[in-house]
Amino acid sequence: MSKLEGDWKFEVVEEMGAAFGLKIRKKLHDETTPWQHLEVYETEHWGNLMVLDDIFMLSSLENYLYHEMMSHPALFTHPDPKTVVIIGGGDCGTLREVLKHPEVESVTQVDIDEAVTRASERFFPELCESNGDARATFIFDDGVKWMREAASASVDVIIVDSTDPIGPGTGLFGKDFIADCHRVLKDGGILVGQSESPFYHMEILKNYHRAIIAAGFTDRRSLLFPQPVYPGGSITCTLASKGLALDRFREADAAAKAFKTRYYNAEIHRGALAQPEFMKAALGAL
Amino acid sequence: MSKLEGDWKFEVVEEMGAAFGLKIRKKLHDETTPWQHLEVYETEHWGNLMVLDDIFMLSSLENYLYHEMMSHPALFTHPDPKTVVIIGGGDCGTLREVLKHPEVESVTQVDIDEAVTRASERFFPELCESNGDARATFIFDDGVKWMREAASASVDVIIVDSTDPIGPGTGLFGKDFIADCHRVLKDGGILVGQSESPFYHMEILKNYHRAIIAAGFTDRRSLLFPQPVYPGGSITCTLASKGLALDRFREADAAAKAFKTRYYNAEIHRGALAQPEFMKAALGAL
Repeated sequence: MSKLEGDWKFEVVEEMGAAFGLKIRKKLHDETTPWQHLEVYETEHWGNLMVLDDIFMLSSLENYLYHEMMSHPALFTHPDPKTVVIIGGGDCGTLREVLKHPEVESVTQVDIDEAVTRASERFFPELCESNGDARATFIFDDGVKWMREAASASVDVIIVDSTDPIGPGTGLFGKDFIADCHRVLKDGGILVGQSESPFYHMEILKNYHRAIIAAGFTDRRSLLFPQPVYPGGSITCTLASKGLALDRFREADAAAKAFKTRYYNAEIHRGALAQPEFMKAALGAL
Repeated sequence: MSKLEGDWKFEVVEEMGAAFGLKIRKKLHDETTPWQHLEVYETEHWGNLMVLDDIFMLSSLENYLYHEMMSHPALFTHPDPKTVVIIGGGDCGTLREVLKHPEVESVTQVDIDEAVTRASERFFPELCESNGDARATFIFDDGVKWMREAASASVDVIIVDSTDPIGPGTGLFGKDFIADCHRVLKDGGILVGQSESPFYHMEILKNYHRAIIAAGFTDRRSLLFPQPVYPGGSITCTLASKGLALDRFREADAAAKAFKTRYYNAEIHRGALAQPEFMKAALGAL
């Protein structure tokens, strides 16, 4: 550790004996919200860094990976996504990507912690540039409760843009919540959730798939993608569908998309559907 | 940093202000070879860890990712890979994967530092389990010199399994060496080299592509894959071909392979050929 000179902020994953750190210039924000400890740092090379309960959430430099993969694969799989709900997602980066799809008519974002959105407006304004879009509605409430009370068969795409399954994000990985998502989706609807790294937390990923199966979804697939700011450097989103085959996305529409992305494109979508051997073995027959 | 209790070993990437660390139980080996500082640690959760000049080389837990991707895409692209040369690769993990291909008749491995192979035999014996294969020849010498002196049009596949372009690995990223690789490959030959992370070292990757173009290769493609032990968590191998289109690999043979892998399969190979938008932009027109 002799080379760790200056100020560093680390995320430590105790159960893997692993840590990832960024060199910081200064702390920009420190707030204890009713839900979590929210910090924002200015880093040397990664722009700003948001940290919740000592877990790295996003950096200016590479959050595009996560936000693009949490939105575009699901939206280009659904044949006509008009009604979208985002649970979590308080930094608004996923919302921005969703709103790039012209066929989307309404997006309801339900995040338990308004402080995250206020901090994002201040320290990640580029992620909030579409927050004034008339199609967007912001609700600051418990996503588990919201989903429990939502009307059945009322939504095309549900995006669960959550923190890890500790603290306020725990319920968003639970069987009851995922069963509610299934109920709230229309036929042909798609659920996509942040589902951790298979290199670090395969048991969480397995339980997520089990909950998807138990809820009655007809197809499921975890898409692995790089995310340098997370310890281990990659993460998955898991798609679950109510009727549709996830292999058959709107490939031509994705190839002809009228908006810019930095990671996602039709070939990356197709490629991310491929399952590494170890993921097939772990998730194939549950 | 208050949570970093106990003993940790970090790799620090100064130019990115980033560090990745593993919790260690003890140091197993410490040797100053004529070429580099070689350490092996026993970690808490990643098995053994080899470190060269303070840069993480491989862990027991996840080296399969790298070794599979450095070998199988190239070998399933070449129509009939009989003669293979590995430059570097002293830990022998890539060699083991290459020897799984029955059509391979000879593999010559040229690593400058015999100490790496001896340490691998001791601390990563599973990677060395094919070292007694009669098709394998070990040469401990300078790979740049070896390639300069090698006969023209004599090799089907060259695998450059190198350290980073600092220290003894520097020459393996150079234009002269890559031009020699082109000369030594037969028509239809394939070069594949470790080419760093596009999130951390895009300039190195660009220069690698420029050297490939300058050498006269007809096609080139960087395949991104996860590698948790590297800071940033992903890395590329770059393929260059002398006549073949890299898009047309032996997909049916890869799908019917008679050996086991943990990451690679035909769909992963096809998927890895997809280029993220930011990589297309950076590498497309050089």
